[in-house]
Amino acid sequence: MMKTIRYILGAICCAVFPIAGICATVLDKVQPSFWWAGMNNPELQILLHGSQIGSSEVSLTSKDITLNRVVRPENANYLILYVNTATAAPQKFNIELKQNGKTTKVPYELKQRTMQSRQTWDAHDVVYLLMPDRFCDGNPRNNVVKGLREQDCNPQNPDARHGGDIAGIRQHLDYFSDLGVTTLWMTPLLINDMPDFSYHGYAITDYYQIDPRYGSNEEYRDMVTAAHNKGLKVMQDMVFNHCGSKNFLFTDRPDDNWFNNKSRYVQTTYRTASVSDPHVSQSDMALAQDGWFVESMPDLNQRNPDVMNYLIQNSIFWIEYAGIDGIRQDTYPYADRQAMARWCKEIDAQYPGFNIVGETWINNNIGVSYWQKDSKLAGNDNSELPTVMDFPLMALLNQVCDQETNVWDSGMARIYDYLTQDVVFADPMRLMTFLENHDTDRFNSTPEKAQNFKRYRQALTLLLTLRGIPQLYYGTEVAMSGNKSKGDGTLRQDFPVRAFDAAKRTPLEQEYYDFTRRLLQWRKTSEAIGQGQLIHFPPRDGVYVYSRIHNGQVVTVLVNGMDEPREVDLTPFSQVLPATSAYDLIHDRKVMLDGKVHLDSRDEMILDFSHIQ
Amino acid sequence: MMKTIRYILGAICCAVFPIAGICATVLDKVQPSFWWAGMNNPELQILLHGSQIGSSEVSLTSKDITLNRVVRPENANYLILYVNTATAAPQKFNIELKQNGKTTKVPYELKQRTMQSRQTWDAHDVVYLLMPDRFCDGNPRNNVVKGLREQDCNPQNPDARHGGDIAGIRQHLDYFSDLGVTTLWMTPLLINDMPDFSYHGYAITDYYQIDPRYGSNEEYRDMVTAAHNKGLKVMQDMVFNHCGSKNFLFTDRPDDNWFNNKSRYVQTTYRTASVSDPHVSQSDMALAQDGWFVESMPDLNQRNPDVMNYLIQNSIFWIEYAGIDGIRQDTYPYADRQAMARWCKEIDAQYPGFNIVGETWINNNIGVSYWQKDSKLAGNDNSELPTVMDFPLMALLNQVCDQETNVWDSGMARIYDYLTQDVVFADPMRLMTFLENHDTDRFNSTPEKAQNFKRYRQALTLLLTLRGIPQLYYGTEVAMSGNKSKGDGTLRQDFPVRAFDAAKRTPLEQEYYDFTRRLLQWRKTSEAIGQGQLIHFPPRDGVYVYSRIHNGQVVTVLVNGMDEPREVDLTPFSQVLPATSAYDLIHDRKVMLDGKVHLDSRDEMILDFSHIQ
Repeated sequence: MMKTIRYILGAICCAVFPIAGICATVLDKVQPSFWWAGMNNPELQILLHGSQIGSSEVSLTSKDITLNRVVRPENANYLILYVNTATAAPQKFNIELKQNGKTTKVPYELKQRTMQSRQTWDAHDVVYLLMPDRFCDGNPRNNVVKGLREQDCNPQNPDARHGGDIAGIRQHLDYFSDLGVTTLWMTPLLINDMPDFSYHGYAITDYYQIDPRYGSNEEYRDMVTAAHNKGLKVMQDMVFNHCGSKNFLFTDRPDDNWFNNKSRYVQTTYRTASVSDPHVSQSDMALAQDGWFVESMPDLNQRNPDVMNYLIQNSIFWIEYAGIDGIRQDTYPYADRQAMARWCKEIDAQYPGFNIVGETWINNNIGVSYWQKDSKLAGNDNSELPTVMDFPLMALLNQVCDQETNVWDSGMARIYDYLTQDVVFADPMRLMTFLENHDTDRFNSTPEKAQNFKRYRQALTLLLTLRGIPQLYYGTEVAMSGNKSKGDGTLRQDFPVRAFDAAKRTPLEQEYYDFTRRLLQWRKTSEAIGQGQLIHFPPRDGVYVYSRIHNGQVVTVLVNGMDEPREVDLTPFSQVLPATSAYDLIHDRKVMLDGKVHLDSRDEMILDFSHIQ
Repeated sequence: MMKTIRYILGAICCAVFPIAGICATVLDKVQPSFWWAGMNNPELQILLHGSQIGSSEVSLTSKDITLNRVVRPENANYLILYVNTATAAPQKFNIELKQNGKTTKVPYELKQRTMQSRQTWDAHDVVYLLMPDRFCDGNPRNNVVKGLREQDCNPQNPDARHGGDIAGIRQHLDYFSDLGVTTLWMTPLLINDMPDFSYHGYAITDYYQIDPRYGSNEEYRDMVTAAHNKGLKVMQDMVFNHCGSKNFLFTDRPDDNWFNNKSRYVQTTYRTASVSDPHVSQSDMALAQDGWFVESMPDLNQRNPDVMNYLIQNSIFWIEYAGIDGIRQDTYPYADRQAMARWCKEIDAQYPGFNIVGETWINNNIGVSYWQKDSKLAGNDNSELPTVMDFPLMALLNQVCDQETNVWDSGMARIYDYLTQDVVFADPMRLMTFLENHDTDRFNSTPEKAQNFKRYRQALTLLLTLRGIPQLYYGTEVAMSGNKSKGDGTLRQDFPVRAFDAAKRTPLEQEYYDFTRRLLQWRKTSEAIGQGQLIHFPPRDGVYVYSRIHNGQVVTVLVNGMDEPREVDLTPFSQVLPATSAYDLIHDRKVMLDGKVHLDSRDEMILDFSHIQ
């Protein structure tokens, strides 16, 4: 039973488990179920859901917490209270509902805050994205939970639950730490009590509850604490654009204005470029943001202040309760831009410097840049979102290692050309960069490609040494492959348990793992990579050279984009070669820099000058 | 003999023709050779070139024109005078040079201005680009001019002179007018007295003289006047980045600081994206702007104020003297950005609203946008250049008509996607748009492609109805083809004289011509196209729909990007379909808009609602 959703109604103690679907009492949701004293925003929204409570008189049994106002939606099963906690000390009090001469007492608590600030994450970090259901099954007892709609747990079915959970993640904190990633991003852990296809987590049916197939709220919080103790940060994947169609907020919605298109299914165009398109039609603008992603995911109306207050408080709840260090927000451009900007500002006001990354899946840098805080293109329509995802770079990184850099605009020249355009970004160092994620082809889009270790080495070198905050996807480090054309499940295969154990890895898996680990562990120590300026050169003779420089620390990278070896004349690069020798991280050796250096076919060097000086 | 370069030295009257190379007198250049009273900038630079004049005492025989200062370059063959004309009336006066007890009198004139304002050109216009040497030979007597270095005139040699001239252009003013273009852009007419490959005009050897193989300064001015009388505007192609290596300014340069890299040949990287690249290296930044285009074209140092003043005055000279309406500036990003911004501002101060287009050959919209006046990306580093060239759209227009619009990002969806990014441009309506120019593959890159009239019809429809200022290239209207891989001469073949005569055109040429003419003549009348807002829709079922709307005038275009016919459901487009019928310009018929319309394979409609209402 989960403490956070327990409360007392009238004289009857009723432990309500929302997934049970029904409750004998008239009140089945109090959200949030508790809060904290001394929060930045003194006004707290408390949403009450229960049969025919809408006409109740509301009062509070507190000296210093007052009722600002009560919103009574069309649906009489709701009351939305706004209470003022400005001067309130931590305390317990009752919310009293009077109706038909009877008084229902709802106990409520403002807790003492325990953590006042959060770690941030930035280009010093490397994010590791995993799908909890597919990563590791640490507790087989929670694979099927009675009362939930989806009862199937079958690792052979790519669309079903596979049994992974929080316990499985927690068991591998040392694995992450040893690998060298610094920040965990788990796809959503909140409950998806949907009839099928619920494993991905993006159809949330209760914003205040961890899915019991992953564990409890407490287990989640404890896992975050344990991760912190290992020096790892944790990012929570949040979904404000839509929820699952079995969410009580939709099945018994306060009113039709809680969801876009008056709570009726109209599909989005998926053309989110519409939002920044100066030529957009009225209908496309409306469809892009207010159309639904799919019918089973009703599109929340963030322009409704009650909705947005609910979502904002929910995100603050998880930061405060679980101690998470960052947020990944799903389908960012599909939600209302101004409402989401307000969210970003409120998070920053409560937790200064707290970093949020939005899923800005737009295939050109202009479109992506428009969603980053202080975009030069957005003018006064500031998104306030600190970090956006560099999807165009992902596409390039997946292509250029298969092309020779033999003409003006092929191979590495495309990376060069793309980065010359970084002037469009308000802050290129706050781009999340990646080779793949849970929605795209894996970098190894076929098992055959996975055999080409050099190809991976080249792409990973670029990813981990160019500007931005790199993100890896679970299994990349052991050569996992997957192709979207064969279904999303193919991209989300179970991490092979065997591969946690070095002794059981194949030679190829070990080659991937060793290289990944070496680069990641080194990267953590390099301020040139963590915050250094990027300086690059147009490819010459097929070789792309760039450098990261911070405060006298210099890391210079040479990438041979050709299938033939190259003798690289170093003359043009004197600005980024501050010594006559350097440590080459790729081959773990000292390199003399006298005039020319040799690069094998598709070879590269990471010259770290701080290692030798 | 050219009046503008005649002057009297001492008591000896000496008509100097610079191409003669030598002159018995010590003074062989006075530039500009005259000027006007009442110009916006009161300070006039007069550059004097003559043997050992550098130590002369300088005085003026004018009551109200005073000498501000005299610049004496290292090379004693120069004097650069700066005179103040602030309060000067039109007048003749002498510049007196005293040296060794002898006085040389240089007659000079400030003329009365005759034209006070110029026409502008914008998206109401369509520009017609032609190469004078390849368009029409109106005067065979000037095909070879004695004394010039290149004596070959051979239409069989793609790199030689072919004999075209100003007379040939002037004879076809009615042709342009009948075709429906509004503005002529001729590649440079200034003298290129180079030993070979001089026909293209971009290696100018005297900035104040029309190449005598094209005609005289007077013929040029008279042609502009005649064009104006036909309702045509004229744009002059200027080249400030570099000159021909036989220019006296280089062969006997004032000092080494007049040309970049101390007047020594160092090749540019051609990577002009460096200028806006936040990650650029010091060496690439220097090479991009200060490297030379080719060895035979020394790179002028615009940061030298004497150089820039010379160039600015030269451009004002041609506007004032010949009455041109616009400027096309060559290789824009290769010249110094700040100096060129000063140029744009001075032109605008003298001729408010005068439009200039820069050749901004960068293959992405971010790079191009950075060069447009008020770029959002450039911040305080404003280029001041009103019009830039939309090279990325050119590439797309050449590709999409060969692709089906059958997936998310192919065919017309690429045009849609590109235009959604127009937020990057300060002013999308001031983009010059085109299918081809003298440096690119023709749209018909092979004679076989030219056979596909529908392909041309589709591309021309897009070009002439989307946002921007369209530019055509001579011969497009009669199905000329050309492929850069076979040499630049292939792109610059002689316009077939036969094709000026409708009776002698092939059926294919006539089909091209008729359609081009119909669209151009209609376009001139449409304010919706000339200044209307663009509204577009993501392609649906392979059909791209967009509209231009101004002040109640609506033109809506439907383009079938599929090789199969389409029945187009009009429901999503109600915003741009203000009536139940419209005139379709493509098929010259009235179309009923009741629910659906039929489009054949690769067919389109231009629905002009103002024609019917």
